Amino acid sequence: MAATATLTKLPQTGAETRAAVRAGRLRHPTSGLAPDFVQTNVAILPKDAAFDFLLFCQRNPKPCPVIEVMEPGQFEAKLSAPGSDIRTDVPKYRVYKRGKLADEPVDIKSYWRDDLVTFLLGCSFTFEHALMRNGIKLEYFGTDRNIAMFTTNIKTNPAGMFSGPLVVSQRWIPKDKVVRAVQATSRFPAVHGAPVHIGDPKQIGIRDIMKPDFGDPWEPSRPDDVPVFWACGVTPQAVAMSSKPELMITHSPGHMFVTDLKDEDLAVI
Amino acid sequence: MAATATLTKLPQTGAETRAAVRAGRLRHPTSGLAPDFVQTNVAILPKDAAFDFLLFCQRNPKPCPVIEVMEPGQFEAKLSAPGSDIRTDVPKYRVYKRGKLADEPVDIKSYWRDDLVTFLLGCSFTFEHALMRNGIKLEYFGTDRNIAMFTTNIKTNPAGMFSGPLVVSQRWIPKDKVVRAVQATSRFPAVHGAPVHIGDPKQIGIRDIMKPDFGDPWEPSRPDDVPVFWACGVTPQAVAMSSKPELMITHSPGHMFVTDLKDEDLAVI
Repeated sequence: MAATATLTKLPQTGAETRAAVRAGRLRHPTSGLAPDFVQTNVAILPKDAAFDFLLFCQRNPKPCPVIEVMEPGQFEAKLSAPGSDIRTDVPKYRVYKRGKLADEPVDIKSYWRDDLVTFLLGCSFTFEHALMRNGIKLEYFGTDRNIAMFTTNIKTNPAGMFSGPLVVSQRWIPKDKVVRAVQATSRFPAVHGAPVHIGDPKQIGIRDIMKPDFGDPWEPSRPDDVPVFWACGVTPQAVAMSSKPELMITHSPGHMFVTDLKDEDLAVI
Repeated sequence: MAATATLTKLPQTGAETRAAVRAGRLRHPTSGLAPDFVQTNVAILPKDAAFDFLLFCQRNPKPCPVIEVMEPGQFEAKLSAPGSDIRTDVPKYRVYKRGKLADEPVDIKSYWRDDLVTFLLGCSFTFEHALMRNGIKLEYFGTDRNIAMFTTNIKTNPAGMFSGPLVVSQRWIPKDKVVRAVQATSRFPAVHGAPVHIGDPKQIGIRDIMKPDFGDPWEPSRPDDVPVFWACGVTPQAVAMSSKPELMITHSPGHMFVTDLKDEDLAVI
């Protein structure tokens, strides 16, 4: 991944990454930055939708792994990134009004309100590192292309105003590494955890594996590769968006909020 | 454990237990009933306190393992116990008004309101079964005496109106079983999970292990036994109570709500 012209050295920690973003020296995707630090999806909603959204996350922990929820109006992630400011520390934001993209700013100070509740949700980088440490090569990692993501026929558990289908990410895993992939990702229930499906895409309502609903299609690298599917962090965003909240602010895809937590902090064993 | 005179056969499932309770045939503690089924602590709060309490649970998953949160006014646990009625299916309740015990009824139909939110929180039975399956004998199990519980100097992560110290339960573990106890309970992060402390009680602010703050004191059975401490479900109740909510309804100690989930459903690996 290429650094921007203004960065002489890639940030190695969450705090360094946030400082570079806040100073305007880093506006590109965060994949590969601050290795081993937990990166998060961001969803910011008005308080009157926040209880239902928290309930939705609690009922669907695989697609919605909550790393931190901030108090209404609070912009510092006190638990996972002390000293941070969620209004300035994400490289690029998206502002949605009634479900429609209205702006893609580099800070959200002008949108901030005292009733906004920020959700930090775990992202797949954490468990992808676990797969790679276990000798499973991920072809898309470090490229400009995105992983393949599909809307399935698996229903999430609805909560208040929020409901919708589960979105999954798909990875090709060598057949003799499938069990290891289950084991390695099971250690991280707080970040999508174990797969939701192994093998035939049709069994979960995916008609054509070369036509993903989000991201880019990938051919298997080896003839015996098995498609393995994990719950995807796109789910809560898709679900929240379809309920058309008055205001919703997220990170721009790939431009994550980097915390001070280490991947290993989220492992259960 | 003795059955009441009106029960000819101990219930073997969550549904059987709830049916017996609802019919008034079961009013005693639920320990030992419906083996392998997940039993839960119950906390019912008005909606205006529910977001903060859910946030408190999210920030403190070890003492507050959320099994299900019901929508405001909903009295059926649709996910963990379809067909249940939380107003009638707990053998004995406690009703607190502004933090003071006001009633100990056998149903709460007369207290029910459309703004009440029910929290079902995992209880230690699930991981105690895991310890016993791993050859760790728990002396108090199946007796009338309770486990020893202590208020520690470990702070919980506050959320809105809720804050307070962590309460732990203590078990004597043979020294050659301590590592196994960590492994066996790590499989259940959704029900208190791994211990929070092993060994010297003073390191977590416990002065006298024979003087618990809740429950009964226990002598070690073997000279080499090690005291091991787990986050305890008394924590959220103590914390909620100290904030003196207008109304709070809980189960009476030991008289749990039994779900249709099996202990193994909560294991991560």
